[in-house]
Order: sequence, then structure tokens, then C-alpha cells
Amino acid sequence: MKIAKTMDSDFEALFRRITGRGRVFDEDLWRVVKEIVDDVARRGDAALFECTERLDGYVLTAETVAVSENELEKAAARVEASDLAILRQAAQRIESFHRHQIAESWTVSEKPGATLGQRILPLERVGIYAPGGLASYPSTVLMAAIPAKIAGVQEILLVNPSKGGQVQPLIAAAAKLCGIDRIFKIGGAQAVAALAYGTETIPRVDKIVGPGNAYVAAAKKMVFGQVSIDMIAGPSEILIIADGSAQPDLIAADLLSQAEHDEMASAILLTPDEALARAVSAEVERQLKRLPRRVIAERSLEAFGAILVTEDLEQAVAVANRFAPEHLELMVADPWTLLEGIRHAGAVFLGHYTPEALGDYIAGPNHVLPTGGTARFSSALGVYDFVKRISVLSFSREALEEVGPQAARFAHLEGLDAHGNSISLRLTGKNP
Amino acid sequence: MKIAKTMDSDFEALFRRITGRGRVFDEDLWRVVKEIVDDVARRGDAALFECTERLDGYVLTAETVAVSENELEKAAARVEASDLAILRQAAQRIESFHRHQIAESWTVSEKPGATLGQRILPLERVGIYAPGGLASYPSTVLMAAIPAKIAGVQEILLVNPSKGGQVQPLIAAAAKLCGIDRIFKIGGAQAVAALAYGTETIPRVDKIVGPGNAYVAAAKKMVFGQVSIDMIAGPSEILIIADGSAQPDLIAADLLSQAEHDEMASAILLTPDEALARAVSAEVERQLKRLPRRVIAERSLEAFGAILVTEDLEQAVAVANRFAPEHLELMVADPWTLLEGIRHAGAVFLGHYTPEALGDYIAGPNHVLPTGGTARFSSALGVYDFVKRISVLSFSREALEEVGPQAARFAHLEGLDAHGNSISLRLTGKNP
Repeated sequence: MKIAKTMDSDFEALFRRITGRGRVFDEDLWRVVKEIVDDVARRGDAALFECTERLDGYVLTAETVAVSENELEKAAARVEASDLAILRQAAQRIESFHRHQIAESWTVSEKPGATLGQRILPLERVGIYAPGGLASYPSTVLMAAIPAKIAGVQEILLVNPSKGGQVQPLIAAAAKLCGIDRIFKIGGAQAVAALAYGTETIPRVDKIVGPGNAYVAAAKKMVFGQVSIDMIAGPSEILIIADGSAQPDLIAADLLSQAEHDEMASAILLTPDEALARAVSAEVERQLKRLPRRVIAERSLEAFGAILVTEDLEQAVAVANRFAPEHLELMVADPWTLLEGIRHAGAVFLGHYTPEALGDYIAGPNHVLPTGGTARFSSALGVYDFVKRISVLSFSREALEEVGPQAARFAHLEGLDAHGNSISLRLTGKNP
Repeated sequence: MKIAKTMDSDFEALFRRITGRGRVFDEDLWRVVKEIVDDVARRGDAALFECTERLDGYVLTAETVAVSENELEKAAARVEASDLAILRQAAQRIESFHRHQIAESWTVSEKPGATLGQRILPLERVGIYAPGGLASYPSTVLMAAIPAKIAGVQEILLVNPSKGGQVQPLIAAAAKLCGIDRIFKIGGAQAVAALAYGTETIPRVDKIVGPGNAYVAAAKKMVFGQVSIDMIAGPSEILIIADGSAQPDLIAADLLSQAEHDEMASAILLTPDEALARAVSAEVERQLKRLPRRVIAERSLEAFGAILVTEDLEQAVAVANRFAPEHLELMVADPWTLLEGIRHAGAVFLGHYTPEALGDYIAGPNHVLPTGGTARFSSALGVYDFVKRISVLSFSREALEEVGPQAARFAHLEGLDAHGNSISLRLTGKNP
């Protein structure tokens, strides 16, 4: 890997290249996705099934679009008992972490007769997008469904374009484990549209969550407003801050664990220690050679990877905050102190024994995280994504007398007289 | 007003017409907005100032785009002391309500050496859109800025296309009151683009909140992903459930307070009491005659207003849940019991002395609320809109030993070997 300094003249270009990945949809992609979304919104199942045949290469009907109980049982039964135990342990840890995110409804009465409050209620029906294609990601099923379940969502649907319409064993097992209500063998922009608008066979949902490719991301943005969405996911990324206390081989392994995801992934090391920078660079080359996904990792590192030497750890923290990375590892002697300065990141991994991959599967926190610098303003998927809040107001006549006249005057100042009238009428009994 | 029954054959058409308002942008609007947004993203101030001159009719320069300290003071000084006291009382009540929404960071250690947590941090810079034009809405400035301030946002910007570039007295007073850092005399899609991408004079923000017209709504949707947005606001609406305990004149006044907003507003009464329905209908006609904004209210009621007779209160609640209205009034003998059945609404107003207008100004809860049925999945603007959460993970070597092998196996099952390697290397010290 190349080594550069954060103060180099080409740093700004690197910064823009990395944080700009996947943020803007090109016009051609947008047009293709819009056609699919509009078609499914208009023609429902017919369009959905045609798209699936054309783009995913398998035939669906109203009878076969949902995974049957029998299919689900048979697929799940193919998972080895030891692997099922791992899924179960992961589910338990994810649940245990996310239970801390439950928020309670409240009411307050500042005075007798004036009660205000906020009721927190679950969304009724949500759709989870689990990417399909070559690999299958049961971990994403757990990460999306468990917080929804904790929030109290009544019906959880899963869409997954499994190979040839066959539900994958691990997906089936994960779905059973976390109480997914129904699985549909659909994917891509057409699945997002079906969930957003509903078709004859797919019920409309209140929120669509989970990662997907650029088509899925564009479709989610398109239907946003019609339904809620979690975020517009971009390619994955890691940023590591390390000092002399860190082992080069561990840093290299963690950079590669991100780079192997896909060619658009980004892996960055920031360190004030030049010797460490050189050692990591050599170690990356060494480990790369043995990696099954070597070609992908090499391309990712070439385009979006960097080892950057900073003046000190303080500068490394400042640069990390500018990147606002999805995953941030603090492989330093005193990570808790460094954490105090971190203002933007999806998830922070402290010390030498908290590899990012642990968080992907089993640690407990969510692995659906903001990418491309959006950690500036968004958060990991959580229980809070599956609830909404309803404000509650209750005034007695006496309580209204105390603030009503002021509200009526305020309404008048804004030129809305009927607003004021609705208050005055209650206080005076007279319609002005 | 016309009276119909919820079971009538044309109810579904009415339902679709009302909940569909403002949800889909027409292609021409989208194209116009896209040109503006792209232009500002590319050319910055030059495009912003050209758009303002062309669309809003006043000339701006880099020196005059921000409201100066002097302009602010002079404008605010024109507000009468008694009105300033009302603004101040409203601000205090809004602050007092929203303080209950503060969420705390937490960490838990289930075992020594394994610590997980969630840090809650404020967004750094947000932009508030306050509509301008003929009327001015200081209440919106308070409703948007106060929760941001409570969350700890460092810098709060306000954009407001005030008439001829002159900041309005009430806007100036409200901005001073709640600690707005800077006001820019811009509006429309161009203001949204400037906040999303930044220009030479307007700094890029992390989130844009506040209502606007269809151009503003489309621009917010367009830049969503680049920045966070609160919601895509549609026209305002009220739904009232009433029984025989309600006064027809109060119901009529409340329906009209919504209908006067704009021609796209919606006002609906649901009641099982046919006599009440007829009395309200007559009362609406009577009150309409004296309303300054009569023409607007009439058009709104004609297109999107309805008095619907239900079989019973239970059915009224079910219909209300389908509408998921922005504002819901329960003008019944026992509103707290009825509230139990309400699953979707922006804000609920209980009893005969809690007119919706009270909530618009002074009660305390936020008046920026989900519209067009989006209360199914979204909430009033709140402190939670101005924070993000960072997951924190810290494992010791011993803690990693307990779950690391399972995570490595899980990674292998998903075909991501470098993920597994980053864990194994820490446990065995050997690079496989």
C-alpha cells in the first residue's frame, strides 16, 4: 500500500474521492430505476414478476413468490447444528444490546388540567432487504429484524433474491430464529417498489431497511416519503487510528477485512508512526497473497485505500472526524481517551482486540451503519428506527384560559384568524 | 359542508384523494428543481444569487446575503413588548416540553473486558427553512430551533426568503430569542441546495429541517442522502372525532382553522352522531362568512373536506388510523380511553378545550408534524432529530476468546475469509 502524509497536496483529492463514493446516482441508473419503480407501482405483480424474470432470471407466480412453510423448514434444516448455535448466540447478543435502545412513552402535567406527553408506538409492518446473488448474508437478517422485533413491529417481511428463487439455508435459519413473518423471493429496485406501494401479493410496508446495490439504493431514495427508509447505503469502509502500541499484522488484517468486501470499499490507516506505516504496508502485501478475494481487495486498496502519516494522534482524530467513517478502530495505547475526541463515526472499535469483524457478526451492536461520511448526521440501525412518536395534548377550560389568549394573539400575528377564533370561541363562547 | 357515510361507495376515492395530496412530485416540477439544485451545487453563490433575483425578485451579494447584526437588531426592535413576551412564553413552553426528549449515552459491561455502548452526540450544524413570502411564521423558527439547541447543535442557520430581502420583525425577534447563529435571505430550492452543498458564503449543513412549498419539498428529497432532512412536508390537515358531548360551533371553528391554511389543506369530521354532523355542517357555513381567508377555506373544504358519519366511535378510530392524520382531535366524553386505540397520528388533542391552534403556538409540543398519512412511520420534529448515535465496542483478549471463534466461523459461512482472519490472527497469533 502507498504511504502518504495527511498534509500532502493530494490529500484533498483523496478525501473527496473516498467520501464521494456512491453518494450521487448517475442519470442513466436513475432513469432505469425510475422505470422499474413506476412500472411496479402501476402494474403490481405483473411488472414485479416480469422484472424478476428479466433481471434475476427466474420465474415467479402469485403462488410461488412467497417462501412456503415447507420450503423454509427444508432449507433451514440443511444448516448444521453447530452453525445454528452460532446464529442463536449472535441473535441473543444482538438482542441484549438493542434492548437498551427501548424508549418509554411519557406524560407530564405541569398544572392540573394541562397534560402533555409523547406516546411511542411501533411501526406496524416493515420490509427488510437482504442482498442475494452469490453470497448470502444471514447476519443482515438478524441485524435488521431483531431491533424491529424489540420495537414491537407486528409484521416483518423479508425480501431476498436468492439464487434461482431458492431460499438459502442460512437465510431461512436466520429468518426462523428472529421471527420473520414472510419471505418473498424478490430483489432489486422492483422489490423496493413492491414493498413501498404494495402489489396483489406483496403488502405495502411502513419502512424499508437493509443494504443493497446501487439499484436498490436509488429505488429506496425514490420511494422515500411514500415509505420510510433507514438510509441510502454506500460501499463499506474502515478507518484505523494506530500508534506504536499496535501490531502491524493486526492492522493489515483489519484493512484487508474491509477491502475484500468489494472494489468500492475503502480502508485507511492514520498513524503518526512512520515505521508502523511502513510495516503495515509490507504486511498488507504479504497477507494479500493468501486471500481468496485477493483481486477485489487489491482493486479496493488501489482506488480507495491509504496509509496516511499524521503529525500526531490529535491530527489523526481531526482527520477521522472529517471522514466520518462507517467503522473506526482505535488501535492505540489509550483508546478511551482518544474516543473523547471522536465526533463522527458509525461504530468505534477500541483497543487491539476489538476487530471490526467482531461487530459484523456477534458483538451485539448493529452492523447496518452510515457510510460515505453520512455518520455526520446518521446512526446505526436501531430500535429507534422502528418506532414513531405521537404527541399528546390535553387542556381543561381553566388551563386554556392561561395560555389561550396568547396563542390567539400569536395566530393573529401570523395572519391566521380562524386559528385564533378556534381559541377565543372556547374562552368567550362568542363567535367574533 | 357535505355529509357522507364512511361506508359510502365513494369513500375510498375520497381517502385516496386526501392522503395522496403532495406525495408525488410531477415530472416538470422535479426537472425545474433539479436544474436549480445542480446549478447551485456546481456554481455556488453565483447560481444562488441569480436564482434569488429571478425567482424572488431581489438582488443579493456576498456582502448582503446574511442578515447583519444591525439589521437584526433594528427589525427585532419593531416587535411590541407584549408580543415579545408571548414569543418568550411560547419559547419557554416549547423548551420545557422538548427537554423530556433528551436521551443519554450509555455503556454496559456484561463481563469484565467486554464493554458495549452508545454515545449520543449532537449534529454540528443545521439549517432551518422558514417559509417567507406574504406571511411570516416566527412559530416555525421556535419549533425548529429550540429542539436543535437542546440537542446541543453548535451552529444553527436560518434561511428565510423575506420580502425584498428585508428580515421580518417577528422572524428577527424569534431568531434572537432561540439563539439562531446566522440568517440568510434566501429561499426556495436554491436555499436547500446551498445548505446541502455549501457555497462560498453559505456553509454546508448536516441536516435541513422545516416546512416549505412543493419546490422546497422536492429539493429536500433531492439532496436527501447528501444531508439529512426532517421530512417531506405536504399540506396541513386535521381530523376530528366527536360524539354527542361536543359543541358544533367548536368543531366548525377547528375545521376552519385548518382549512384556512391553504387550498390543499384537509379538514375531516368523523362522528357517529348524525344530528351533530348536520349541526356542524350548518355551523361551518355560518362561520365561513366572517372569515378573512374565506376563499381559501372554501376551496379547501370543497376539495379535501368531509363530514363522515360512522357506525360508532370504534369505527371512527379505525378510519382515523387509516388516515394517520397530522392533527387529530378527540372531542368526545372520554378522550383518554379513545386515545388507547389511536395508532397513527402526528399529534392528538384531547377533549373540548384543546384546540389544535393551541399546539401550533404555545402548548409546547412541536408543530412540525408528519402529513399525508406519513404519521404511519414518522414523528413530530424533536430533539431526537438533531442527534446521532455512535456505537462503541471494546473487547479484551480474554473477552475476544469467548466469541471470536464463532464470529470467524460466521464470516466464513458468508464467504468473507479476511474477516475471519482478522479475528483468528488475534487469537492464535498465526496468519493462516
